[in-house]
Amino acid sequence: MADAAGRSGVEVLCIGTELLLGNIVNGNARWLAEELAALGLPHFRQTVVGDNRDRLIAEVREIASRSRVLITTGGLGPTPDDLTTEAIAAAFQTPLEERADVWADITAKSRSRGREPGPETRRQALLPVGATVLPNPTGTAPGMVWSPTDHFTVLTFPGVPSEMRAMWQATAAPWFRQSGLSSGVFVSRTLRFWGIGESTLAEQVRDLLNQTNPTVAPYAGRGEVKLRITACASDQPEALALVDETERDLRSRTGDLCFGADEASLASVVLAHLRARGETLAVAESCTGGGLGAELTAVPGSSQVLLGGVIAYANAVKCELLGVPSSLLEEVGAVSDPVAQAMAEGVRRLTGSDWALALTGIAGPGGGSDEKPVGLVHIAVAGPDGCESHPIRLAASQGRDWIRLVSAGEALNRLRLRLMAAESGQTHTEAEGH
Amino acid sequence: MADAAGRSGVEVLCIGTELLLGNIVNGNARWLAEELAALGLPHFRQTVVGDNRDRLIAEVREIASRSRVLITTGGLGPTPDDLTTEAIAAAFQTPLEERADVWADITAKSRSRGREPGPETRRQALLPVGATVLPNPTGTAPGMVWSPTDHFTVLTFPGVPSEMRAMWQATAAPWFRQSGLSSGVFVSRTLRFWGIGESTLAEQVRDLLNQTNPTVAPYAGRGEVKLRITACASDQPEALALVDETERDLRSRTGDLCFGADEASLASVVLAHLRARGETLAVAESCTGGGLGAELTAVPGSSQVLLGGVIAYANAVKCELLGVPSSLLEEVGAVSDPVAQAMAEGVRRLTGSDWALALTGIAGPGGGSDEKPVGLVHIAVAGPDGCESHPIRLAASQGRDWIRLVSAGEALNRLRLRLMAAESGQTHTEAEGH
Repeated sequence: MADAAGRSGVEVLCIGTELLLGNIVNGNARWLAEELAALGLPHFRQTVVGDNRDRLIAEVREIASRSRVLITTGGLGPTPDDLTTEAIAAAFQTPLEERADVWADITAKSRSRGREPGPETRRQALLPVGATVLPNPTGTAPGMVWSPTDHFTVLTFPGVPSEMRAMWQATAAPWFRQSGLSSGVFVSRTLRFWGIGESTLAEQVRDLLNQTNPTVAPYAGRGEVKLRITACASDQPEALALVDETERDLRSRTGDLCFGADEASLASVVLAHLRARGETLAVAESCTGGGLGAELTAVPGSSQVLLGGVIAYANAVKCELLGVPSSLLEEVGAVSDPVAQAMAEGVRRLTGSDWALALTGIAGPGGGSDEKPVGLVHIAVAGPDGCESHPIRLAASQGRDWIRLVSAGEALNRLRLRLMAAESGQTHTEAEGH
Repeated sequence: MADAAGRSGVEVLCIGTELLLGNIVNGNARWLAEELAALGLPHFRQTVVGDNRDRLIAEVREIASRSRVLITTGGLGPTPDDLTTEAIAAAFQTPLEERADVWADITAKSRSRGREPGPETRRQALLPVGATVLPNPTGTAPGMVWSPTDHFTVLTFPGVPSEMRAMWQATAAPWFRQSGLSSGVFVSRTLRFWGIGESTLAEQVRDLLNQTNPTVAPYAGRGEVKLRITACASDQPEALALVDETERDLRSRTGDLCFGADEASLASVVLAHLRARGETLAVAESCTGGGLGAELTAVPGSSQVLLGGVIAYANAVKCELLGVPSSLLEEVGAVSDPVAQAMAEGVRRLTGSDWALALTGIAGPGGGSDEKPVGLVHIAVAGPDGCESHPIRLAASQGRDWIRLVSAGEALNRLRLRLMAAESGQTHTEAEGH
């Protein structure tokens, strides 16, 4: 798609001194990059600059000399620091003019909040002569779509992520789809895995990682590993079919290591299994302190399955609420399989749930010993067919948050595997949450 | 600090197609930007490019023509996609040579994991002639510090955040401190506020936001509001004194709205208050489902204060475990002040704690009604001097996660204010966690 002068692709320019001071992470750049990839638009460069007029002008000119489209974020507010529109106009020696429709819109929005628009907001109604308004449905400052030359278009967005996204979805994405700049339709799907490391999984599917369409790329995150499948085709159904085929291949190689796709979480998958079976769940948490319950209840509708649980941080709570015998605590210690089992059985009895998960471990940084080091967590699963507990040994160096997070995930995964084993022979695809 | 050719400042170049596809957010750029600001180094631009040799060479040459220092992240791995070192050498027509010390280090690290280094890792031992090794204490690939010209230095880092940070702290930060590039010493402190919106707080301290040294900048996040104070001076004690003075001013204007500084959280501050008083805490959670317990137990050492709690998601659990009368549930409904109070008193009685917090509400997206809309949460605080409950009404449009997060924060803040009221007359500065 390079033109005669060699211009090609879309660049993203994020404007704001707060980015250069490291005050905020550049989530807009990531979000736009993902959108551009999904639209099949070639995207070779992202740049961040501060609120400096001369540097902005120089940057815009340089980008116009090598790229077809520039997307900017930030610098559209009412303060003197907000220089984006002015600098872009200056880069192409174009005067600004006040747009009556924009000013009317700013005034109306201000009055709907019970205020008259301040004089400083008036500059937000200025756009370069020839630019089209890019409406901002949720905020004050509009952006613009402007082609100062035949082979270069700039789209401007505010830095507020929610406003930028709404404007993108409503106006910019349709503009790009009709622009003829796309090199096809891209479809992505992310498969999620638990219980295998990134390098081991990559080794198992090495040949697919070298595929060019769909591509398969591994990512690690929050204790799980992800494989992202991305296909490019001339239309959506064809791209989807390519993704489906690679997904089938990956799933057949990895079996029950793959717990779901896209927005599925271990919690949502376990809840879907239990909902389909008409069964209920309770939790008893020591080292995770409520984190497992929080993950489960983060899923809307979890109240159909999760009855509740006990945060048994102190030993007295383990004994008095969950009925763990104090003699057992003295004999084997709180961080042990027998105590995890007694906690799971205790909370199952207390709540009358079909299933229960219990965790007791040492999240650190203190409290470890040679025999029971930081990172040792005992996890019990109790159900209609009995109760089992096994330890997991996590690296102390990964830190308290990671140990708590991964042990909660491990508990959910053990229940998932046990439910799948109980269901084996039946199909369980519907329960996998995608 | 511009040289005769006008070169000035430090640029960051992040290399990796995964950034341009939007697969990951550029956390390295934010982290480096914050470090550069703390060192007082002028930083005008960040760029992201993909794993493309020609574009990398062009980018490095362009940066060398306008800046004094380039920091790169990514592209140091063993695969053919990893092109950073090679492209930087090519940008300055400098040959690569294998470093025996680097290869010995790679071999030793590989063997300590029980493996022989693969032939593909050999290229990680290549550096441009004249470059110094930037050691990687935790990973395989080292970086380099190289001045291909008298007025330009490049420092390379891997893209793995933990490795990049360790290398920065051990080698790069000391290098920058001795480089003479800094324009002073910068010290920052973040004050944290609860119970006030960003714009209202900004209004209250408007004059300080216009100060130039220290600067004061507002940020919103996770239900709280932050004011970041940054001072620049010729040495650390002088910068600290400037920060302290502005902090005193801000605190005297905002009173108990400020709950702590820097790494303090509402949970850590409440735990510190209770630890100082020798008192204990328990929680009873419905809509937060364990999230409040998880926040409290995220703080190391919380087991001295937090005994535990009950996740009372189902009404039966509220009745049977917490002793909420079922007649009360029928009369006023689970989402009500009387039920929140009964939950708090119930868990306090069950665990024998001095204090208890209870939450019951509608996190959505379903389950709301005209009378009890999504976002309505009743929060009770029970203590030695009685039990009180009040509702908080949050915007349904903010979503389930936000409603759960903010209501847990609100519960902690109410306990904080009640403890402060009980302590009034005493100093409570030690308990504020900084």
